[in-house]
Amino acid sequence: MKKFQVVGIGNAMVDILARADEGFLSEAGIEKGIMQLIDMDRAVDLYSRIGPAKEISGGSAANTIAGIAQLGGRTAYVGKVKDDQLGGIFAHDLRAQGAVYDTPLAPKSAEHETGRCIVLVTPDGERSMNTYLGVTEFLEPSDIDDAQMADAEWIYLEGYRFDGPESHEAFAKAIRATKGAGGRVSLTLSDPFCVERHRDAFRQMIVDGVDLLFCNRAELLSMYQTDDFDAALAQAATEVEILACTDSENGAHILSGGDRWHAPAIPTEIVDATGAGDLFAGAFLWALTEGRSLELCGRIGCVAASEIISHIGARPEADLHALFERHGLN
Amino acid sequence: MKKFQVVGIGNAMVDILARADEGFLSEAGIEKGIMQLIDMDRAVDLYSRIGPAKEISGGSAANTIAGIAQLGGRTAYVGKVKDDQLGGIFAHDLRAQGAVYDTPLAPKSAEHETGRCIVLVTPDGERSMNTYLGVTEFLEPSDIDDAQMADAEWIYLEGYRFDGPESHEAFAKAIRATKGAGGRVSLTLSDPFCVERHRDAFRQMIVDGVDLLFCNRAELLSMYQTDDFDAALAQAATEVEILACTDSENGAHILSGGDRWHAPAIPTEIVDATGAGDLFAGAFLWALTEGRSLELCGRIGCVAASEIISHIGARPEADLHALFERHGLN
Repeated sequence: MKKFQVVGIGNAMVDILARADEGFLSEAGIEKGIMQLIDMDRAVDLYSRIGPAKEISGGSAANTIAGIAQLGGRTAYVGKVKDDQLGGIFAHDLRAQGAVYDTPLAPKSAEHETGRCIVLVTPDGERSMNTYLGVTEFLEPSDIDDAQMADAEWIYLEGYRFDGPESHEAFAKAIRATKGAGGRVSLTLSDPFCVERHRDAFRQMIVDGVDLLFCNRAELLSMYQTDDFDAALAQAATEVEILACTDSENGAHILSGGDRWHAPAIPTEIVDATGAGDLFAGAFLWALTEGRSLELCGRIGCVAASEIISHIGARPEADLHALFERHGLN
Repeated sequence: MKKFQVVGIGNAMVDILARADEGFLSEAGIEKGIMQLIDMDRAVDLYSRIGPAKEISGGSAANTIAGIAQLGGRTAYVGKVKDDQLGGIFAHDLRAQGAVYDTPLAPKSAEHETGRCIVLVTPDGERSMNTYLGVTEFLEPSDIDDAQMADAEWIYLEGYRFDGPESHEAFAKAIRATKGAGGRVSLTLSDPFCVERHRDAFRQMIVDGVDLLFCNRAELLSMYQTDDFDAALAQAATEVEILACTDSENGAHILSGGDRWHAPAIPTEIVDATGAGDLFAGAFLWALTEGRSLELCGRIGCVAASEIISHIGARPEADLHALFERHGLN
């Protein structure tokens, strides 16, 4: 048995969550429903204009890893924070959830601070993310510990992490170390605009070494530059062993080796959609590494996602096992 | 019309909120339901042992001021934070709520950090507070701006602020400046153990210059060292013009000039009691400065408190005016 069921690599961020209406978004020039990268000046300006906020550890792959850890899975996370107060909060919350987190800290003297994401939640529960990457942008190949990758049944790579000067090389190193030890590789496309920025690099990585691809409808369509959802699903399914594509209120589609399953979404009042995809992936990977069928993995993922969207914040607050039990999925 | 309806002076803190069970409290040597002061070593140790947390601006009087500001009241707050990330969060959240906050920051080089309160919420909704005061302990008389005090209809003094080397002198200065300009003084006793630590100083201040005293049952009994609640209420009412004493599920008792009113509690599922007393005081002071009767002030206070205990965090999340409307209190 390998030491870790899943090791995640992503952008380490603390979320700053505040409510805002559509008027504020358009006034502040924020595109609704997506992640936009901002610099420190913009982060300072935007923060000064938003209402009272809550700070909750976030980061897409970190949310996924926190979810797997809450389910009892053996996990580690790789992502860079600074030795500052927000960095301390990020590290605490992962470790407190039971994940191993030992990426070297950027020193107090480092120019950039711990990354943060100003998440504005509109009354419809949709989240618009404004990401100041800070030091997480500078994750280097040397931050990847080959031995830790070799200890992973699966690694989970966050698409957002493609935004960064040495990120492609860091991912390539992680993939080599994982595969060299018989482990497998999963990737999430993260965001349609992230796909837009890195389509060729994503595609190359998928074809070369990704075993399990997570995405949502918009990301998949952007990836394959088509409006035909079924065609895009079919094409992706020829390039990876397992495809898990979420589709909002339509649930998720799972494809593998010519088979296709549909997992229904759980009707839920949407309070804050932040992290729904992250926990879908987390619960899916947990179930997969626990030996569940792909169909069941998809259904478990949808139930887990429904927990996240029912409250503010991207990490699970309810007992996920109890929730699976209630849906007859244990 | 004075510039401010209420100016609050208190310990500026960021709350670190996590769930814990009774077993953890006893294992960690935490007394349930009260505020205990801890040093930095203990704060670091305790933080390493608690589960994933959320960071939300807190501080008792700051919660009160945030509540008044949310209601549209004209407010300012005095309390010390450092020029660090948590200090920035604290300042942002007050200003974003509409309060004036211009207490000089302790410099980055200051020995102590921004204060924080590790709040452990047990399944019964009770909160056990572990407070590292940090720089807020060092609020000095020079941080009190006489002109700002003179601009206040009411000042609101936090009993917790009595823990600090120069706090009594800072309060005395604030009271002089306020009263000298025709303003009035309210005080909250904050906590029965805080009363224990500072009984004589509290008593002196009450007799000398407090017009409106906020407390709860346990604090009042501790103040007057008796088990006879009615006798303590009666005695306090002879020493201040207005007494507003909360009494958990029994609501609140308001006494003034020989009159006494009872305001009923609003039945609510208790998620997290942190800040219920703070917002009671905030809504009470807002209503008072808007010219409402004392009985109505008490009822409005109880409705506001019910909002706070229905969610995690000590600052209001719902629209309080809409809530008052639903209870026929506008």
